[in-house]
Amino acid sequence: MAYNAVEMADWQISEAAEENMPTPEQWAEKLGLQSDEMLPMGRLAKVDFLKIIDRLKDRPDGKYIEVTAITPTPLGEGKSTTSVGLMEGLGMRGKNVGGALRQPSGGPTMNVKGTAAGGGNSLLIPMTEFSLGLTGDINDIMNAHNLGMVAMTARMQHERNYNDEQLQRLTGMRRLDIDPTRVEFGWIIDFCAQALRNIVIGLGGRFDGYTMQSKFGIAVGSELMAILAVATDLADLKERINNITVAFDKSGKPVTCGDLEVGNAMAAFMRNTINPTLMCTAEYQPCFVHAGPFANIAVGQSSIIADRVGLKLFDYHVTESGFAADIGFEKFWNVKCRFSGLKPHVSVLTSTIRALKMHGGGPKVVAGKALDDAYTKENLELVEKGCENMVHMIGVIRKAGINPVVCINRFYTDTDAECAIVRKAAEAAGARCAESKHWEKGGEGALEFADAVIEACEEGNDFDFLYPLEMKLRDRVNKIATEVYGADGVDWAPEAAAKAEMLESDPKYADFATMMVKTHLSLSHDPVKKGVPKGWRLPIRDVLIYSGAKFLCPCAGTISLMPGTGSNPAFRRIDVDPATGKVSGLF
Amino acid sequence: MAYNAVEMADWQISEAAEENMPTPEQWAEKLGLQSDEMLPMGRLAKVDFLKIIDRLKDRPDGKYIEVTAITPTPLGEGKSTTSVGLMEGLGMRGKNVGGALRQPSGGPTMNVKGTAAGGGNSLLIPMTEFSLGLTGDINDIMNAHNLGMVAMTARMQHERNYNDEQLQRLTGMRRLDIDPTRVEFGWIIDFCAQALRNIVIGLGGRFDGYTMQSKFGIAVGSELMAILAVATDLADLKERINNITVAFDKSGKPVTCGDLEVGNAMAAFMRNTINPTLMCTAEYQPCFVHAGPFANIAVGQSSIIADRVGLKLFDYHVTESGFAADIGFEKFWNVKCRFSGLKPHVSVLTSTIRALKMHGGGPKVVAGKALDDAYTKENLELVEKGCENMVHMIGVIRKAGINPVVCINRFYTDTDAECAIVRKAAEAAGARCAESKHWEKGGEGALEFADAVIEACEEGNDFDFLYPLEMKLRDRVNKIATEVYGADGVDWAPEAAAKAEMLESDPKYADFATMMVKTHLSLSHDPVKKGVPKGWRLPIRDVLIYSGAKFLCPCAGTISLMPGTGSNPAFRRIDVDPATGKVSGLF
Repeated sequence: MAYNAVEMADWQISEAAEENMPTPEQWAEKLGLQSDEMLPMGRLAKVDFLKIIDRLKDRPDGKYIEVTAITPTPLGEGKSTTSVGLMEGLGMRGKNVGGALRQPSGGPTMNVKGTAAGGGNSLLIPMTEFSLGLTGDINDIMNAHNLGMVAMTARMQHERNYNDEQLQRLTGMRRLDIDPTRVEFGWIIDFCAQALRNIVIGLGGRFDGYTMQSKFGIAVGSELMAILAVATDLADLKERINNITVAFDKSGKPVTCGDLEVGNAMAAFMRNTINPTLMCTAEYQPCFVHAGPFANIAVGQSSIIADRVGLKLFDYHVTESGFAADIGFEKFWNVKCRFSGLKPHVSVLTSTIRALKMHGGGPKVVAGKALDDAYTKENLELVEKGCENMVHMIGVIRKAGINPVVCINRFYTDTDAECAIVRKAAEAAGARCAESKHWEKGGEGALEFADAVIEACEEGNDFDFLYPLEMKLRDRVNKIATEVYGADGVDWAPEAAAKAEMLESDPKYADFATMMVKTHLSLSHDPVKKGVPKGWRLPIRDVLIYSGAKFLCPCAGTISLMPGTGSNPAFRRIDVDPATGKVSGLF
Repeated sequence: MAYNAVEMADWQISEAAEENMPTPEQWAEKLGLQSDEMLPMGRLAKVDFLKIIDRLKDRPDGKYIEVTAITPTPLGEGKSTTSVGLMEGLGMRGKNVGGALRQPSGGPTMNVKGTAAGGGNSLLIPMTEFSLGLTGDINDIMNAHNLGMVAMTARMQHERNYNDEQLQRLTGMRRLDIDPTRVEFGWIIDFCAQALRNIVIGLGGRFDGYTMQSKFGIAVGSELMAILAVATDLADLKERINNITVAFDKSGKPVTCGDLEVGNAMAAFMRNTINPTLMCTAEYQPCFVHAGPFANIAVGQSSIIADRVGLKLFDYHVTESGFAADIGFEKFWNVKCRFSGLKPHVSVLTSTIRALKMHGGGPKVVAGKALDDAYTKENLELVEKGCENMVHMIGVIRKAGINPVVCINRFYTDTDAECAIVRKAAEAAGARCAESKHWEKGGEGALEFADAVIEACEEGNDFDFLYPLEMKLRDRVNKIATEVYGADGVDWAPEAAAKAEMLESDPKYADFATMMVKTHLSLSHDPVKKGVPKGWRLPIRDVLIYSGAKFLCPCAGTISLMPGTGSNPAFRRIDVDPATGKVSGLF
């Protein structure tokens, strides 16, 4: 029986569903886990992924299902909700299903967007733990990251205060000679703290640090988070951390966490983050939560580790990509799957009548403002025209050799005639299509959707990458721009071209992933252009280098790594009942 | 069998002892806890203190033993080690014993001092969890605290950008009109980050916060930590958080977390911190770890909650005070016990031959430099003369009506003749005295010490506070200065006197605790003056107001709430084994 999602807030549904939530011991039994493979953390548990993968190494992987979306409105089209709904639908069909989602950031949770726990009856529970720190991974990342900054700034102070002989005698350390104008690393905090975006630190005297400009980013934008999402194990994590470039010295050479002799201690702080946390849907399908990297400078997906362990434990494993198919799916396809060696079977393209109408020329959609009538009343013309964005995305998925399933995440204002247009367009483009009412009805509302996915999984596919690893950076970007985004070509700013040339000629970067930085609000770099923009070229103004994560990020837009807290943030309504410890107001 | 503490590092002893460490389930059985009273967190567990206290409300409390020290050298005289050693000694005597210690800060752990886990065979285990985040309380405090700053700085930005009408319409909020030059609250991070001590934030444009001076303190110096140590339950915690003064408005009125509408969300972040974490000694006596407030602006002790639950579960409950007896014990006596209503039986005065020699006129002791011969070779004259500091501290403890037990924390360089002098002086001053070699031998080395404590517990005492709550602030300070510190009187700076007068006349502050701010390196305010300084007056230059914790802090010295990372910090030597996840290099 589904909950009344219209009348109940998400945190209320979670609280109700928690009454029958399995304990860690019950989960161990359900999933056939051995006692040393479960690490209970309060009501939740982490799992020892290495032990599980090792024990089940001969068991064939389950079906690997990715959930992406058409270009969304600024409100988002419900990828998390659809991912959870699919788990519930498959569960209702009696399948052994599970999934992997990202850990949410405290920034959106306390601000206007809320926790990305899905919603309605397609919700991840328990919502309080999910929203407020889970089992501590982001806190561990925050401490590890900031320890790196403590090491760097203290070192700069000591190097300024001591001559070479003193430095050697006091510390046995050589001079790193960091250029204060070329510091790349910043501090992190897991909130939207715009006041810390641009700061001056180290004011005071000779024992008050080093005076320079600095910055705070949001924790989930940390390179450590990017690393966690792609690391294979603790050894890999530690090596990558030591390779992070924090600054350049006065001769232009990179200075790493290893050079600061702090990378190992940072890895020690992150030793527990390597194991995923087990949660579940409001209908009690298991779901791992692990890593929560930004979709602009990182993969925007939960970790490779979570997918690996999920595929061993579940016959159907559902994983969500951040952003839309041009960004999120492209990274899943060419970065995450290449790093993991895993082969996906199906991609779900989450679509809404609302977003399709926007692509068809509907009025601007603005968060916090009431929707125009065009979105709440039948308008077949807008839907018809808007389908081109969906059709384009179906083409992107098919280019990867994966079977696409369009899921119409149906709202109660959508009409049957509108949905029929979408179905026709999707099928004509070579995709399966299903409506789903998981938000309202949970798994019961997602049966058609689940059936379409099951069917698509049974079909063979021929997954392949868009480009081989040998392809040079600028050729890769050109291929992504033209074949995924639909651009006519790429325009490199002179400095970006020079940097690209350097990167292409240095064998050190040969196995680095190409991690595009582009808005998800348009197929182009201009968030205002909806539908499928034609006759445009992608401008690249810089290439960021993440030497720990091994990412090269060509930038077709600016990235803010520190969002701002709005004027009516969620923390105003979040409260805790002192008698029970129960938290209310999360959404 | 004790470990070879001379050859093994602390983290190695911990690792060896962890092999037989009870699991959370085994602890529940040993302590007679019900299953819903234990909340397993990995290898550790939190306990639901309210459930336990409620279930055992009719059971009489155990013996309440506090551990303090004479005025220490800058190296510290081993209070934590002595506390753990006492638990082990009492355990070796077959007693049902346990204790409560503070959670260490990541600052000292990663810097030169190391984790305060005790040492040698008197060690709290598992050391890795203890040192690197425990069960997340400090992280929760950090997030709660910084959310308060996010709320304040975002509010200041929005109030600057919007007029009253816009503000009302967008947010439904009134103008708080915070004076940017009178912001009291800062940000926190749990490291020694001197570069963040004095900063300028909010640089950029109109959506980049509010440009002003700001500061970071170390997390354990947060008012939230001070509150956690004295809170009675979650309701009390929440109320106190909402009462924290973050700034003053332009008319001089305090602005609180409640005014920012963020106090409830802060309390939600801290909901789990209210429950203590269960650890144990290297000889497996149970020990709670809960809160870790600074001893200058807070009680410097683990929480009232931890002591309350320990006294219900153990026949002997050992708790440690921060700093020396003039500061740490005085706060235990007049603040913590008044808030808790608990009555202590015995205070242990940790003494070392080293510190006594310093008080007797020995050469300066400097951290990181080799000790002078005076400290490693027999010198009866220095010991004899230095005993005056110990005798003074015995007098302080006796003034409280508690039985004092001097513990000579014996080093291998100390001679029998030196110890005999101390024993004679202690007994002449009305204290029991025992040597102890717990560092080297664990409980086996602490039997004489344990026996002295058992004996002292059996004796009746007449515990009473130094001053009644009705006494006015300046009279309280005068009493503490003259009767505890041995000053001739108190000199109030004009501004401090004016502030004191205001505080004395406002009934709002009548039940606030008096929380002295003074160095622990001397009985006086001057850290250079050793022994028992004579002919001096205590200068008070300010009174800090913590309206959430309900502390008034008369300042007889400056307090730095952000220590600095030294030139040879511990993080250089801390590492994690990727194969096992085991952490090395902690001390």
